[in-house]
Amino acid sequence: MPQPPKRDSTTIHMIDVSEKPQMDRMARASGEIVLKSTTIEKIKQGSVEKGNVIVASKLAGIAAGKKTADLLPLCHPLRLSKIEVQIAVKDDLVEVTAEVKATEKTGVEMEALVAISAALLNIWDMVKMYEKDADGQYPTTTIQNIHVIKKEKKLREAPLEA
Amino acid sequence: MPQPPKRDSTTIHMIDVSEKPQMDRMARASGEIVLKSTTIEKIKQGSVEKGNVIVASKLAGIAAGKKTADLLPLCHPLRLSKIEVQIAVKDDLVEVTAEVKATEKTGVEMEALVAISAALLNIWDMVKMYEKDADGQYPTTTIQNIHVIKKEKKLREAPLEA
Amino acid sequence: MPQPPKRDSTTIHMIDVSEKPQMDRMARASGEIVLKSTTIEKIKQGSVEKGNVIVASKLAGIAAGKKTADLLPLCHPLRLSKIEVQIAVKDDLVEVTAEVKATEKTGVEMEALVAISAALLNIWDMVKMYEKDADGQYPTTTIQNIHVIKKEKKLREAPLEA
Amino acid sequence: MPQPPKRDSTTIHMIDVSEKPQMDRMARASGEIVLKSTTIEKIKQGSVEKGNVIVASKLAGIAAGKKTADLLPLCHPLRLSKIEVQIAVKDDLVEVTAEVKATEKTGVEMEALVAISAALLNIWDMVKMYEKDADGQYPTTTIQNIHVIKKEKKLREAPLEA
Amino acid sequence: MPQPPKRDSTTIHMIDVSEKPQMDRMARASGEIVLKSTTIEKIKQGSVEKGNVIVASKLAGIAAGKKTADLLPLCHPLRLSKIEVQIAVKDDLVEVTAEVKATEKTGVEMEALVAISAALLNIWDMVKMYEKDADGQYPTTTIQNIHVIKKEKKLREAPLEA
Amino acid sequence: MPQPPKRDSTTIHMIDVSEKPQMDRMARASGEIVLKSTTIEKIKQGSVEKGNVIVASKLAGIAAGKKTADLLPLCHPLRLSKIEVQIAVKDDLVEVTAEVKATEKTGVEMEALVAISAALLNIWDMVKMYEKDADGQYPTTTIQNIHVIKKEKKLREAPLEA
Repeated sequence: MPQPPKRDSTTIHMIDVSEKPQMDRMARASGEIVLKSTTIEKIKQGSVEKGNVIVASKLAGIAAGKKTADLLPLCHPLRLSKIEVQIAVKDDLVEVTAEVKATEKTGVEMEALVAISAALLNIWDMVKMYEKDADGQYPTTTIQNIHVIKKEKKLREAPLEA
Repeated sequence: MPQPPKRDSTTIHMIDVSEKPQMDRMARASGEIVLKSTTIEKIKQGSVEKGNVIVASKLAGIAAGKKTADLLPLCHPLRLSKIEVQIAVKDDLVEVTAEVKATEKTGVEMEALVAISAALLNIWDMVKMYEKDADGQYPTTTIQNIHVIKKEKKLREAPLEA
Repeated sequence: MPQPPKRDSTTIHMIDVSEKPQMDRMARASGEIVLKSTTIEKIKQGSVEKGNVIVASKLAGIAAGKKTADLLPLCHPLRLSKIEVQIAVKDDLVEVTAEVKATEKTGVEMEALVAISAALLNIWDMVKMYEKDADGQYPTTTIQNIHVIKKEKKLREAPLEA
Repeated sequence: MPQPPKRDSTTIHMIDVSEKPQMDRMARASGEIVLKSTTIEKIKQGSVEKGNVIVASKLAGIAAGKKTADLLPLCHPLRLSKIEVQIAVKDDLVEVTAEVKATEKTGVEMEALVAISAALLNIWDMVKMYEKDADGQYPTTTIQNIHVIKKEKKLREAPLEA
Repeated sequence: MPQPPKRDSTTIHMIDVSEKPQMDRMARASGEIVLKSTTIEKIKQGSVEKGNVIVASKLAGIAAGKKTADLLPLCHPLRLSKIEVQIAVKDDLVEVTAEVKATEKTGVEMEALVAISAALLNIWDMVKMYEKDADGQYPTTTIQNIHVIKKEKKLREAPLEA
Repeated sequence: MPQPPKRDSTTIHMIDVSEKPQMDRMARASGEIVLKSTTIEKIKQGSVEKGNVIVASKLAGIAAGKKTADLLPLCHPLRLSKIEVQIAVKDDLVEVTAEVKATEKTGVEMEALVAISAALLNIWDMVKMYEKDADGQYPTTTIQNIHVIKKEKKLREAPLEA
């Protein structure tokens, strides 16, 4: 089987999307953070000292999703029409799901993945003090299973009417 | 066992670190992205169309680490003295490790975790086209095992000399 | 009268505007900063030590208006076609007015309000030294009367021609 | 009385703080947003459709406070050790108070004022739909009374110990 | 010949582009950084201690191009469909070229010029240690010849199809 | 003469400054933009339609200088104590000079160079309409001669007193 040509190690470029049509884009993704069961209890009871973990982490996710083109150098700046972040507190982990929509020339899965990542990291930041052991280490805390659930695109047949 | 007091659902606050001493802080963290073996091959051969995945993803990680206080609303702005991102291409996944240092009143593990997350997301963004199946979905791609390897702090005994 | 249903305290979401039509949007808003009459004199005479208060504050307003989606987590990123900031120095206060335009799916009043707020805060920042009393306090300085003057939207009947 | 010298209209400059000592700085400021009583009811009942107004607006305030040097061009970048935002829902208005601390060469009142302004603007953004009249205008909504409550500075006598 | 009217020194405004049609825009620009021949050698050999200068500087250029509206206060926020940065290592200088595309109401030459400037500054930052003389000064390093090569606009005759 | 070892093309790293002492840093740099003489006239007469070019470009420079660590991925975030931008309108060009100060572990020349670059680009942006020829091209406009005038560092012998 022929090998693909080796590219120069100095190559880096953003895809040119100028000739792609605008389409209705949607992406849904999710991820998890494994926490100590005592931390999970605190989140469920609303007794985390830093405050309302769920609202703060949803907001961190939404805000980060809008910064995707600033965080990932080859992403195009997009006008997102929706970022929804949902958080489910399970027995030994917290699951974050995000859905992003836009009418653009390129897909929005990176925006959904950035939203999830920021929400998960914000959960970690807010419960840090409960997750550290006596030596200041994190024996349990792990972010895992970040994946795209579904990605869709479709051409809009007629322009929207007022 | 007494339950912890339920906090008001409107609570949210940044920890006040004004009375904490400045210490030398270090945090090392890592995470992985699972990719198709054909994608791994392309990264190893340097034949990814978008270009040099390793350098671009290290840079995305370093740049994001410096934006931690912008991404995580309760994090304090810190002057980092070092962010190092390493990337190891394994058989069926790519492993990203980050080490962050600062002389500050608060730890730098969130900065290391943000750096890793952004580097992993940037790898995803650069190999998207190889990971999607015929239906435009991502059956394989997963970010996993993001954890803190080591966190250290120590008081500096004497000021640095020129 | 039936009470509205109590929403879960963990709810937070951005409005989904994907099905809304693009319309020509305009918003005009204004606000005031009350200053000591001696400070007002300095602004009028152009003798503020930090420099040209009017131009700097207009620019701070324009620049901030473009950052609305970064400052307000539930705002959609918009492509603004105009931000105009006007500043009128009155007898005991300075009045700032902003007009913002865009052809978008959602209104631009938050952009106008952010522009005004930043311009007013920048005026404060530039005349701080004249407003503080001997004890370093601000007995006079107050930002007030920030309101939307007018908000308009209309559907464009025909596409723009070259 | 001699008039102050007229400065050139091209003057603009940031104060040079290099020779100022680092001091413990604190500033407390507050402001208000006047809303319709039906909107106030919705906030009290937690039935605002966009979600938890209080937590979201506190977070918007904290996040914006950290961006002060980005919003106000002549402000110095500071390492803040605390931003606390409190929100009190009164009968016909919502009051926002912020307290900021830092050990820096310059005061932190602008950071407190930016935090308040962003929190107030975020409240507006979240209750927009209840404040607009049939014509899409805002007859009631007004941001007012933004002022500095207290500003303090003191030299730290001994370095902090671990 | 009549003199143009003198504008008030307090004037500053963003051009209102609301009535301009969207057109396909392209701008190509370039610039150079003069370096010591020993530094040029290191770049060619890939032995710069900070790493891969070419990829890092291309990325810095792409990322900065997307921040144009944040850096230049009177620029409109645009959705860029492409930023391509090329770098040619010549005998005593490095030449950077950028091409930017967008379908927008206003041209993209400032985006191309910002991309070039950031790429050139990043080259400087990465080879600083080789350019400084024994006294810590830069006798050779100069950025020069930043200019627009070509600017184009054309109205798209038919909407893009899927 | 032995050749320096070829580094791996995947290397990229930020210098670790944790063991460097804090010193008083200063850097002064300058650059020029060549403009048509009719444009220079307009700047001198204050008749540029977009407004006060000098103040706006100084501010753009100051604001950009504070964003250096965001624009150049390997730069450390610094607390600047001063950024001064001066602009001199000459016969056929405009000269921009910037001076930056900080007490930090690393030099501030990149901050001065970023400030100059942004100020020069902002001048370009504000006089674009006068520089373009009938074909929309820029036959004259060029940014040139960006260089560091002077760089200094010295250890502070005693801490600053109040």
